[in-house]
Amino acid sequence: MTPYTPPTQDQLLAIRVNAGIDELARSEKFAAAEADLVEAIVAGVGEFAAGEFAPLNRVGDLEGATLENGVVRLPDGFKAAYDAYVEQGWNAIASPVEFGGQGLPFILSCNVLENLGAANMAFNLLPMLSVGAIEALEHHGSEAQQARYLPDLVSGRWSGTMNLTEPAAGSDVGALRATAEPITEGEHAGKYRIAGQKIYITWGDHELAENIIHLVLARLPDAPEGSRGISLFVVPKYHVNADGSLGPRNDLRPVSLEHKLGINASPTCVMSYGDNGECIGELVGEENRGLMAMFTMMNNARINVGNQGAQIAERATQQAIAFATERVQSARAGSPDKSPVAIIEHPDVRRMLLRMKSLTEGVRALLYYCAGQVDRGALGDEAAKARSEVLVPMLKAWGTDVGVEVAGIGIQVHGGMGFVEETGAAQHWRDSRIAPIYEGTNGIQAADLVTRKLGLDGGSAITLLFDDIAREAGDAPMLRDLAEQCGAVARWMQDEASLDDRLAGSVPFCTMAAVAVAGWQLLLQDRAVSEGKAPALAETKPVTVRFFLERIVPEARGLKAGAMAGADLLYTLPTEKLAV
Amino acid sequence: MTPYTPPTQDQLLAIRVNAGIDELARSEKFAAAEADLVEAIVAGVGEFAAGEFAPLNRVGDLEGATLENGVVRLPDGFKAAYDAYVEQGWNAIASPVEFGGQGLPFILSCNVLENLGAANMAFNLLPMLSVGAIEALEHHGSEAQQARYLPDLVSGRWSGTMNLTEPAAGSDVGALRATAEPITEGEHAGKYRIAGQKIYITWGDHELAENIIHLVLARLPDAPEGSRGISLFVVPKYHVNADGSLGPRNDLRPVSLEHKLGINASPTCVMSYGDNGECIGELVGEENRGLMAMFTMMNNARINVGNQGAQIAERATQQAIAFATERVQSARAGSPDKSPVAIIEHPDVRRMLLRMKSLTEGVRALLYYCAGQVDRGALGDEAAKARSEVLVPMLKAWGTDVGVEVAGIGIQVHGGMGFVEETGAAQHWRDSRIAPIYEGTNGIQAADLVTRKLGLDGGSAITLLFDDIAREAGDAPMLRDLAEQCGAVARWMQDEASLDDRLAGSVPFCTMAAVAVAGWQLLLQDRAVSEGKAPALAETKPVTVRFFLERIVPEARGLKAGAMAGADLLYTLPTEKLAV
Repeated sequence: MTPYTPPTQDQLLAIRVNAGIDELARSEKFAAAEADLVEAIVAGVGEFAAGEFAPLNRVGDLEGATLENGVVRLPDGFKAAYDAYVEQGWNAIASPVEFGGQGLPFILSCNVLENLGAANMAFNLLPMLSVGAIEALEHHGSEAQQARYLPDLVSGRWSGTMNLTEPAAGSDVGALRATAEPITEGEHAGKYRIAGQKIYITWGDHELAENIIHLVLARLPDAPEGSRGISLFVVPKYHVNADGSLGPRNDLRPVSLEHKLGINASPTCVMSYGDNGECIGELVGEENRGLMAMFTMMNNARINVGNQGAQIAERATQQAIAFATERVQSARAGSPDKSPVAIIEHPDVRRMLLRMKSLTEGVRALLYYCAGQVDRGALGDEAAKARSEVLVPMLKAWGTDVGVEVAGIGIQVHGGMGFVEETGAAQHWRDSRIAPIYEGTNGIQAADLVTRKLGLDGGSAITLLFDDIAREAGDAPMLRDLAEQCGAVARWMQDEASLDDRLAGSVPFCTMAAVAVAGWQLLLQDRAVSEGKAPALAETKPVTVRFFLERIVPEARGLKAGAMAGADLLYTLPTEKLAV
Repeated sequence: MTPYTPPTQDQLLAIRVNAGIDELARSEKFAAAEADLVEAIVAGVGEFAAGEFAPLNRVGDLEGATLENGVVRLPDGFKAAYDAYVEQGWNAIASPVEFGGQGLPFILSCNVLENLGAANMAFNLLPMLSVGAIEALEHHGSEAQQARYLPDLVSGRWSGTMNLTEPAAGSDVGALRATAEPITEGEHAGKYRIAGQKIYITWGDHELAENIIHLVLARLPDAPEGSRGISLFVVPKYHVNADGSLGPRNDLRPVSLEHKLGINASPTCVMSYGDNGECIGELVGEENRGLMAMFTMMNNARINVGNQGAQIAERATQQAIAFATERVQSARAGSPDKSPVAIIEHPDVRRMLLRMKSLTEGVRALLYYCAGQVDRGALGDEAAKARSEVLVPMLKAWGTDVGVEVAGIGIQVHGGMGFVEETGAAQHWRDSRIAPIYEGTNGIQAADLVTRKLGLDGGSAITLLFDDIAREAGDAPMLRDLAEQCGAVARWMQDEASLDDRLAGSVPFCTMAAVAVAGWQLLLQDRAVSEGKAPALAETKPVTVRFFLERIVPEARGLKAGAMAGADLLYTLPTEKLAV
């Protein structure tokens, strides 16, 4: 596996052009995000990720996380790297200043995750899940809960988890069955006795942090059925004493680890709460409003997963370019010189590499555009907030699809060596495959786009987006055409299509729309580069942008028929006939 | 992992409509291929594959092939299943009658492989490689070699391998360095001393067959450089005595097995020949003509790999449909009934399943169409032979890409359970990934299409194909449009494009073309079904064909821009800048 080289210049370009950091830094809230600090953070975390996280990627895959006598073990090196991460303060970038964070824009938290995840996707899930726990407590915890849990979560000394899924409650979270009984007497009076089993708990247990703060969805006695009867609880692995020191262990444990296709260094736990009836948790927010609380942080969580598409695509692209530069095989076709050349010289290999690079940069442009809209939303810009909500499902779904596609091309560039695990190309592909599934499958993202997001602001949130793209497409006719077609599909879905028709076309529409936005954001990058704003990218950016606009954009245009094909055909066959 | 249910009816439809078996059976050579026998074979091998090969698929993945003290071991059950396969005569379907084969059309050999490979892709590689060795000896071996090796290869008591690749000679076979020294004295006079190391040798060693007949490419002393200096040798694992009994072991051995992404039950060997200077082989065909001899069987070998796309797609589709039928999650969106339903009822899941099914049937239709043209070619029909040659790269490249895509959708249908190895969905995806690589990467297939195949019969072999499709598209306007666009790309490539331009657009063009042919062949199936020719498929076929024509075909249309985008952009950046 080749080392990780952080794409610092391209990240900075996206942070400036697509996220608009300079404008954000003019606000009081984000005044600290000055150009020098931003550059120092991006360069610094890139260097840290390359030096500390990347070297553990292969051993993490080979040895993986293991459960030994009830304790989750990671390969050598993970503990030291995590300690260094906490020590250097990378966990605290975007967290509130009052709990020890730096209060910087979400954009920069995205950059920290992007670098850590490109270096080591499985390891990065640990900080990524902690971010979710921090946000949950920041927005819904009581003052006492925030004071008790946030400082150590923000520093990274403690980590956090999200506990939603149960065997019969996956995409349908509302079907969950874990319970919470109010405690009326004794030292835990006012708290709750939690019981139940949760599955797919990412970094559900480990020894890298001193404590693990589990956020657990469960039902109170007599709670309404379905999603309206779910409450959120904070359940620490070790009880926290009034003075902040750690008390005895809570009644919860990892039961087993999943044997997965990839991200082997991330312990995916089956967690059991209350085996002995003594698992104590505190209610976060209001009773029966747990799912609402989860929704608050879902937006950012989905952006963070879309980010993983950019991460694995970047890493796979670097690996493929390095291989193609070294691997010598065959002379150039049609050349009078019959000596074999590095395969990067062959037209189709070059096409593959440029496709990988263009797609990666496209996802990155969309990621920072979306993150910038989130930060504007936090400053009270309602239009930006609405736009970020429209962008999130596109980024999550298309970004992670791109991660899988690019990692797959990476294998192909390697030829037979790509299928052999030693090379490392296959690991990227295996790792990439989780991202279209978790944090809401890509089908659920697309459904969100054609239901809730399609109607946002009376429908204008999404149509304005395509209008903006068409207007700004300038000398990119294929992009303008794609944006207009996206607009036509959106209006058809808003005005004419049935709910089933919309859902039937949701995935192709989501892809079309994401490509249109990414193409637009790349075009803006290209213009900025042509104005001299990123001299280091002056040669490469025009090429990757043209590749995207001339080849990726027309492909997305081909999805329109599927987006508007409707649901009738899907239900022509009775269900039992599908299996014939 | 769900059991394998052979898609007998769809296979028979493709064998009749796309391969045209009834017409072939009217020839003297294939007179035995009467309808009753064909049905018996298709049903019989399907049942055999489901009963004997399929149950070993999961254990083959988990335990894999291992090398212990120089001997390759397979999990329990493989030996008995292979013995049953030989016993029942499935290996001999299409081999020459004079060596114990049944002399049936290649079409039926494709069906045997399709069923065995859908049941167990890794295991099926053993018979598949033997087919290649049989063909090599059938077409290029001396009478003595044929008499010595073919009867036991045809029965399956012995297996065969192909030894081309070396570490520095992958796609560029001409760069290989293995040597063959003529022996002028002693018991092996007239034979050759083989020396060298070969990699990626599929089923290079094992104990399932009594002997292994290696076909090895090597260089004679003073042979010309490159591909014109390569000769073909037959090198048995055990020497064969004059009376046909097995003699002592030859000086060759498996050095190690690759640790691969998938097809774990297929031992992929590094083979060493002549460690002690005593590896004896015989020349097959003429000196320095080894690569030509390999080319003879390359066509069929590539069809057999394209077939693997249909196989893994079929298996993944069955698995996904079974899961989606059982897995209950969420109510139908918009339904007044709030009870959760099987996920197969949700529009996007149904879209995924129909996409899997349509793509699978499309590859199958193309496979049998191509195989039928091969059989016609063997009867002396030159136009059919040319058409088969045009179709082969499309089938190999697109068929195997579809295998990966469909297996990937299969994971997605499973949600989180798709990422957990226990389910089996992930194995299909891992297994599928080798097929776009071996037997000539898909990039090499596309290059073959836009170089040699584009000029076949003065260029008419390929343009006639698209003309046929456009003419027969009838009431499928999107298919007619796609065929016309394919024709336009082909003529541009023939008349105007440079070699680099053609190579730069080769992969998108190959995909477009394959989808056009598959759509056409599905349309012909649909017409046959509507005429009452396959009552069992009367309900399903119109749906899958419409899905393909209305959704897959327009997507392929979106590839035209990339096919005609030319090579200039690819070379705008100097190579060293690509890595920035």
